[in-house]
Amino acid sequence: MKAQLGGDEGKHKFVLKTPKGTRDYSPKQMAIRERVFNAIITCFKRHGAEVIDTPVFELKDFDIAGQFDPMIPDAECLKIVHEILSDLQLGDFLIKVNDRRILDGMFAVCGVPDSKFRTICSSVDKLDKMPWEEVRSEMVGEKGLSPEAADHIGEYVQLHGGLDLIERLLQDPKLSQNKLAKEGLGDMKLLFEYLTLFGITGKISFDLSLARGLDYYTGVIFEAVLLQQENDHVEESVSVGSVAGGGRYDGLVGMFDPKGRKVPCVGVSIGIERIFSILEQRVEASEEKIRTTETQVLVASAQKKLLEERLKLISELWDAGIKAEVLYKKNPKLLNQLQYCEDTGIPLVAIVGEQELKDGVVKLRVVATREEVNVRRENLVEEIRMRTSQP
Amino acid sequence: MKAQLGGDEGKHKFVLKTPKGTRDYSPKQMAIRERVFNAIITCFKRHGAEVIDTPVFELKDFDIAGQFDPMIPDAECLKIVHEILSDLQLGDFLIKVNDRRILDGMFAVCGVPDSKFRTICSSVDKLDKMPWEEVRSEMVGEKGLSPEAADHIGEYVQLHGGLDLIERLLQDPKLSQNKLAKEGLGDMKLLFEYLTLFGITGKISFDLSLARGLDYYTGVIFEAVLLQQENDHVEESVSVGSVAGGGRYDGLVGMFDPKGRKVPCVGVSIGIERIFSILEQRVEASEEKIRTTETQVLVASAQKKLLEERLKLISELWDAGIKAEVLYKKNPKLLNQLQYCEDTGIPLVAIVGEQELKDGVVKLRVVATREEVNVRRENLVEEIRMRTSQP
Repeated sequence: MKAQLGGDEGKHKFVLKTPKGTRDYSPKQMAIRERVFNAIITCFKRHGAEVIDTPVFELKDFDIAGQFDPMIPDAECLKIVHEILSDLQLGDFLIKVNDRRILDGMFAVCGVPDSKFRTICSSVDKLDKMPWEEVRSEMVGEKGLSPEAADHIGEYVQLHGGLDLIERLLQDPKLSQNKLAKEGLGDMKLLFEYLTLFGITGKISFDLSLARGLDYYTGVIFEAVLLQQENDHVEESVSVGSVAGGGRYDGLVGMFDPKGRKVPCVGVSIGIERIFSILEQRVEASEEKIRTTETQVLVASAQKKLLEERLKLISELWDAGIKAEVLYKKNPKLLNQLQYCEDTGIPLVAIVGEQELKDGVVKLRVVATREEVNVRRENLVEEIRMRTSQP
Repeated sequence: MKAQLGGDEGKHKFVLKTPKGTRDYSPKQMAIRERVFNAIITCFKRHGAEVIDTPVFELKDFDIAGQFDPMIPDAECLKIVHEILSDLQLGDFLIKVNDRRILDGMFAVCGVPDSKFRTICSSVDKLDKMPWEEVRSEMVGEKGLSPEAADHIGEYVQLHGGLDLIERLLQDPKLSQNKLAKEGLGDMKLLFEYLTLFGITGKISFDLSLARGLDYYTGVIFEAVLLQQENDHVEESVSVGSVAGGGRYDGLVGMFDPKGRKVPCVGVSIGIERIFSILEQRVEASEEKIRTTETQVLVASAQKKLLEERLKLISELWDAGIKAEVLYKKNPKLLNQLQYCEDTGIPLVAIVGEQELKDGVVKLRVVATREEVNVRRENLVEEIRMRTSQP
């Protein structure tokens, strides 16, 4: 944060929580956090979410509870992850999908005893960090699985793909004989059909090694990972992992049912802390300027004795919903006013002067290009809106 | 909250915090809170606030720190209170304004000994809840002020008005001799000139009885109160008090100055909890329906076997930023889809049917009026935006 206080034209407006203890984040960090929160909230609302519990800003989960036709809510959850990660421009990503029933069916047909499902599942879960050979030796050496069963699992868990792979596994002589696996694969096919309608299969991979550690998932499971770009210019690469995940947990809780019955539920959880640190590291590395305010225009004057005119104009702009600032000086120098815009990233300056007042216009200056146009006062609000609307 | 779960077409999407403990608020309460927060945040951002500390949603204060020409930031703080209270449509309100220096000067010319300034000030502060006679007897009886001094104070503290009153007090033979009072009145005049430029003097009253208990104010002080409407229809009136307040506290802290120097500061604090309870009571009383989602349109189908078409259409709408929902059923009845809109307040239904698909149109139905128009598919997003844009 630059020294905004005490200078000639410096000012500092802030929103202040009761000042107890030290501050957790700088305004720059808060601006990044707000950008992430806004992307998530906007997406959740686009999908009809209502907000429960407080504070709103801790939200990061989206869940759909209720008895519905298969895979429609599940597909929407994947669409939501796809929308949020695209919107945040975190770089290339992949959403891995699997189904708890396919995993369980696979373990059964590979000859894993029921009692070892859980522990073998947690070994499979390590495949994103360890090579297959190490996972295999954990299964056989530490967990006492037969080498044949482990090799059999190995053939499956190295598979990943799309509808083709699902079709192929539906024909698999062993898996197709297992009731759970068949159910899971049938639903996976339906899911991919819906994802095709949503136009997002390009970033989704059916991956038999995706296990997710949690016991409570009962159907579809998924996890979004950022893909490391091979980029010579990036010296130190950000440690990338899962940035979102979720799945179906039909047996979990009766908390939303008045009679305490079990409610089918599918949910997404966004890894906001990881996303923050990725974005913060990226901002540091790029020296990108992060604005900490959203001000669209500074109301400035070219000559002295125009404070009253500046206040009149800014009041009009505020009342029209324009985000506007004015320097709290009676007679600020034009240069200082322009410098304030450079420092804080305000894109436009509305300049009033004797001549402009006579002519019924305001001089609108684009800070980046130094272009200046006279705008009729009655059109100023529209002109500012047009020039600062988000693409 | 109505029973949205388990029904034929019922669904429930929610944003879930880690489910620890009980929930603090219902979705309806959260919707009211969000409306209030949004009004406050939007206003603060319009005035160039940057956010410090977290979580953002606890914000309720706006402060301007720095060395500036007199009364410009102070006037902006009053404009902010005016904007927020107008925006929230809480009913008629009044912002009382005074100045610590005028109070101190007044006590001096009325013959209050220095040592009694504080305690007499806290008596004056009770004038919004007690009649003058009681306050007077507290001053004389409990606090040992001379009856003459008390009567003298009584003449002043019952005054309130605008620029006229300020001019009159500037001519007051006693007050005009007191350095502090004169300074305060001079600044108050300047403040009212700026408030005139902002067009908000209609709801602002210079009130000599406004004292505010806090010791740390050094200049302007203000407090916004809701005015009780005389309304025969309202049986039980909401207990109304201060909904916002603030003032200048130049000597308070050096926390924002790198060298720990004292920084002039003027700030607003919004009484959000009081505003919440006023709005909640009002909603209860009026049986107004509060929406807990912001969904603009439900994508529905008139015939069976159109799930894929519904999903294709809703995907287009989501990608265009439209807030849209679809029932998670393969073949929902049209009546159930319309009923869902009635229940949740969704204003529009986009209906796809065999004929519409052939004609390249979507039937757009306005839930409130039952009006139906065919809209060309390529114009649908624009049409929905237009029909659901906030006035």
